[in-house]
Amino acid sequence: MSNVGIVGLGPMGMAVARALLRAGFAVHAHDPRPSVTQVFVAAGGRAAADPAALAAVVDILVLVLANVAEVELVLFGPNGAAVALSEGAVVVVSAAVPPDYPETVSRRLAGRGILMLDAPMSGGGLAAGKGVLSIMASGPPAAFDKAAGVLDAIAEKVFRLGDRPGQGSRLKMINQLLIGIHVAAAAEAMALGVRIGCDPRVVYEAIRHSAGSSVMFESRVPHVLADDYTAPFPVDTMVRDLGTALDDARRHGIPLPLTDAAHQQFAAASTAGYGGAEDIAVIKLFEVPVKSAVT
Amino acid sequence: MSNVGIVGLGPMGMAVARALLRAGFAVHAHDPRPSVTQVFVAAGGRAAADPAALAAVVDILVLVLANVAEVELVLFGPNGAAVALSEGAVVVVSAAVPPDYPETVSRRLAGRGILMLDAPMSGGGLAAGKGVLSIMASGPPAAFDKAAGVLDAIAEKVFRLGDRPGQGSRLKMINQLLIGIHVAAAAEAMALGVRIGCDPRVVYEAIRHSAGSSVMFESRVPHVLADDYTAPFPVDTMVRDLGTALDDARRHGIPLPLTDAAHQQFAAASTAGYGGAEDIAVIKLFEVPVKSAVT
Repeated sequence: MSNVGIVGLGPMGMAVARALLRAGFAVHAHDPRPSVTQVFVAAGGRAAADPAALAAVVDILVLVLANVAEVELVLFGPNGAAVALSEGAVVVVSAAVPPDYPETVSRRLAGRGILMLDAPMSGGGLAAGKGVLSIMASGPPAAFDKAAGVLDAIAEKVFRLGDRPGQGSRLKMINQLLIGIHVAAAAEAMALGVRIGCDPRVVYEAIRHSAGSSVMFESRVPHVLADDYTAPFPVDTMVRDLGTALDDARRHGIPLPLTDAAHQQFAAASTAGYGGAEDIAVIKLFEVPVKSAVT
Repeated sequence: MSNVGIVGLGPMGMAVARALLRAGFAVHAHDPRPSVTQVFVAAGGRAAADPAALAAVVDILVLVLANVAEVELVLFGPNGAAVALSEGAVVVVSAAVPPDYPETVSRRLAGRGILMLDAPMSGGGLAAGKGVLSIMASGPPAAFDKAAGVLDAIAEKVFRLGDRPGQGSRLKMINQLLIGIHVAAAAEAMALGVRIGCDPRVVYEAIRHSAGSSVMFESRVPHVLADDYTAPFPVDTMVRDLGTALDDARRHGIPLPLTDAAHQQFAAASTAGYGGAEDIAVIKLFEVPVKSAVT
């Protein structure tokens, strides 16, 4: 079994680490936060002081990070991983980045003989913990061959999207766009239903068995019914991800009217103070007394 | 077995007639069009000359009609059904109507001792033919008791939404609102994907197994991939149904930004000449060369 490295032990990264430990890999990781590092070590992992120290002992390095700035810092910053990785190593990059970014990183790493997979993950920390994560990955076949065991251990589904870095991030962006629209639509539909006198539980039950349903409708409306907006998927993530899609579409001159309407709703919810709440808290904009409307 | 009557032998009404014939009911029907009436008679049904003649021989009358004007004409027009129905008869009304309308009809029929169910159907003629139709129904318990056998024969799922007429139409309106948004979102997502260089078949396969999926995404994107926009569910139906939701929301002072964006897209597609094409033809607004983009 190879030595596998992880940088980033947030909810998603920690779930990835646990999945790899369960699968029998020797798992090393770096995270600047001592609290999560301690949890990781207690689970059987080995901590590294910085990305370079981590890179020196692994063949496959999985980055589970938030954005471009973090990827840049971890790979190319002080004590960065890129200079320490050996030739033929594979870097698996999972982060929310503009879809043209992975190709530039791939080119810089290729100059050092390092392979890269553009491999954003979908499903969030909860899904990763249950092993129902999906990975949307693109990159050279040699990188897929070397990382296959790692990807299979992490995700229930691995979508292979061709050789070109960026295709993984493009598909993830499209998936996030639909998630955002569907969450905002679920909020709008439930708000309308309550305001015109429908029982929200009845609306939920009937719609989720009808043609108007979506994965998000089924997943998020129960949070409204329970009046519980504790986030694993906060409003601000939607503001960011729909913003990424709108930026990319603008560069290509493509109108995205529904994405734009959804983005405005999430931005309004964030401005109103719900940025850290679960994305379906966008329904708070309608100020519907959902609980008291339940008969 | 009771005598059951049907007015309206369009694709949905014909499917309802066939389901009732299969279930062993004596089925009578009226439709002004000789062509569909002949098909109905050949299938074992009995034709009636007008709604009044039909109403005189049935205990349960199912209206499968398009709008308020048709319901008014059939029930209260010349040779209308209302005056000919016997006391205790049940009228099951399935039509796309503003959600405050069923209550007024119910009141007028109640004055004659006739019971009514507000019972719009969902799934369309194809679903009805396969027995996967759903009915969203509200009305007095006595009407449900009497019509239970008929409803169960027609639909796979019957949602009982309480005593108040209008709740069936409200839920149907909310379901249509979500269908419209999800179809427009599927078009927008696929158009973006093609324009930024993704293979549309790969996008479809990956998204439908991911959190961004919806019943409509799964149902409609294959039409795009096949470049086949033959309608059972035309763009103009979406223009009408999203318009109904926006009208109702405006009366209540509720903003529906995503519904509005979707309505604009369908109206634009209709204006561009796609009103009779399948609803996902809304993607034509983007003029994406989907077929040639397939690798």
